[in-house]
Amino acid sequence: MPHGIIRPQKKIRIISSGSVAGREEQMGPLGGSFDMTDTKDDSFGMKTWEKAESEMQRLALGFAMEKAGLDEDSIDAMFAGDLLNQCVGSNYGLADYKIPYFGLYGACSTASEGMLLASLVCSAAPSRCAAVTSSHYCSAERQFRFPLEYGGQRTPTSQWTVTGSGAFILSSLDGDRASYPYTPCVEELLPGYVIDRGINNINNMGAAMAPAAADTLYRYFSEGHSPSEFDMIITGDLGREGSEILKELLYSKGLDIDSRHVDCGNIIYNAESADKHAGGSGCGCSAVVMAAHILRNIGEGVLGNVLFVGTGALMSPLALNQGSTIPGIGHLVHIKGEKEAE
Amino acid sequence: MPHGIIRPQKKIRIISSGSVAGREEQMGPLGGSFDMTDTKDDSFGMKTWEKAESEMQRLALGFAMEKAGLDEDSIDAMFAGDLLNQCVGSNYGLADYKIPYFGLYGACSTASEGMLLASLVCSAAPSRCAAVTSSHYCSAERQFRFPLEYGGQRTPTSQWTVTGSGAFILSSLDGDRASYPYTPCVEELLPGYVIDRGINNINNMGAAMAPAAADTLYRYFSEGHSPSEFDMIITGDLGREGSEILKELLYSKGLDIDSRHVDCGNIIYNAESADKHAGGSGCGCSAVVMAAHILRNIGEGVLGNVLFVGTGALMSPLALNQGSTIPGIGHLVHIKGEKEAE
Repeated sequence: MPHGIIRPQKKIRIISSGSVAGREEQMGPLGGSFDMTDTKDDSFGMKTWEKAESEMQRLALGFAMEKAGLDEDSIDAMFAGDLLNQCVGSNYGLADYKIPYFGLYGACSTASEGMLLASLVCSAAPSRCAAVTSSHYCSAERQFRFPLEYGGQRTPTSQWTVTGSGAFILSSLDGDRASYPYTPCVEELLPGYVIDRGINNINNMGAAMAPAAADTLYRYFSEGHSPSEFDMIITGDLGREGSEILKELLYSKGLDIDSRHVDCGNIIYNAESADKHAGGSGCGCSAVVMAAHILRNIGEGVLGNVLFVGTGALMSPLALNQGSTIPGIGHLVHIKGEKEAE
Repeated sequence: MPHGIIRPQKKIRIISSGSVAGREEQMGPLGGSFDMTDTKDDSFGMKTWEKAESEMQRLALGFAMEKAGLDEDSIDAMFAGDLLNQCVGSNYGLADYKIPYFGLYGACSTASEGMLLASLVCSAAPSRCAAVTSSHYCSAERQFRFPLEYGGQRTPTSQWTVTGSGAFILSSLDGDRASYPYTPCVEELLPGYVIDRGINNINNMGAAMAPAAADTLYRYFSEGHSPSEFDMIITGDLGREGSEILKELLYSKGLDIDSRHVDCGNIIYNAESADKHAGGSGCGCSAVVMAAHILRNIGEGVLGNVLFVGTGALMSPLALNQGSTIPGIGHLVHIKGEKEAE
């Protein structure tokens, strides 16, 4: 079958992760799980929102490296991207690290795209790779919508860009393990197609991404897998609107993921937080939920077998002004916790 | 040695390439080498420059696939990126192809970044991957400098963004060969660091990229290689200003590449073309020079052993307005022509 599931030829372990988030995220249900939060003003000591976003990436990778006891020389490559024009969050944030750098652009799918490429590179030869991404509510609003000072109203389907950065270190080196009782291992990968179903509402990213997530999951389950194998099927970040569309699309093809589905955008903020509307979004959303919450639960044995489909809306204000619609993409990573022999 | 030269564990062949370019490029020394040029108005039949750029990517990959006799099902992944915000040249240009998609952002280094990642993925398992990139003079001027209608003057150190797209298909499948007498094979890879030497002149990208190219080449030659092994050491695209800086930086470290060095930005336009100033630039520059010229010369046995260092200035107008300087990056691909047994 062309473009089928990829099974890495080496054992790929996610040995460490780091997460940094903002004030709103700190007040959400996962607030206690992040390595660091700026509860004052989300500036992380910087003078601009873009520099604050870069600083979050620098910090997140620093936490991941520190937890794994690694220095720059012991990481072979890093994959990073973000939502900002020219990916300045990553370019400037990670320039401090003397580690070979591959810039990505996958919008909100960047965490999964980075994990996927890191896994493939670790599969080509024994090595360690980092995947890093971020988003910042204030830099994203300014670039994609309106500067905050404008005080614009938001629609019920709009999502709230997460202020946060997540970093992951993957390894195919023999002795490498996570510091948890269980090590999250990358079992399978399924990269996504660019899927465009004609959505052109800049305030409904979930609807633009849901068909891409559905396509990737449908192709995955067509190869002999069943939703019941998994403790959790995680998408990031469709939000409430997109999640409903995803489940309906899959249901129409005979797949019921309802009882197992969790969307990173739906669990990062409290449901009663009115201004978050349809939930969280942004590259940082799935990155911090995976780094701070899901991987920890796998590490502690609470979750055993999960699918993570990172979804991105490849949305461009200029392209929309020129009458284009919003393409989406969804990359799948199958992660399983494994108790390592002592 | 940490971050040393990567030698793919499988034989990686560049089996095909495609190139599309504009009117100015058609009038340059390589004008006869492109698969297609729009000699009328660089619009490629589209209503906006951004859509024209997307169309060039679609065409370039189409040519590469046609030459190799491949359809969508026989390519396992594509790596693509461009200079436009949110990489719309790639997202929209390649959405027509049902091939798993990895979005990149490497500025003008994207051709080399794509080749490098395609090589690593082909090295992980027998597979075929495409790398595609583009730039368009009119979309780049509008986004990074001024709309053309403004009629701004350009400085002597400024480079001219190439209107063009190049696509490459790499393979580690046993029977795959280029249609030339010699097949260009990827021997070695050396990804770059993000290097920032404090350049903040938006009209001197060459100076921002030269230190990154010098760093990558210096690290490469420190591992036992000598410039004299190579028929050509190709950088893309430092232009005339950046090329001089690169050679001086390497000379100060005891490396003389002068007689072998060619920069893609210096050979795409006629030297007497006054408004091109310091030469060509843009993701499309090294992409079309490699796709249409260098790989053909390797295929025909004119060149045997070459180094290609794709260089990118990770330049952001917003970051410069906030007082940041311009980081650069240089990714190295060592390519050798091999006569295949019949």
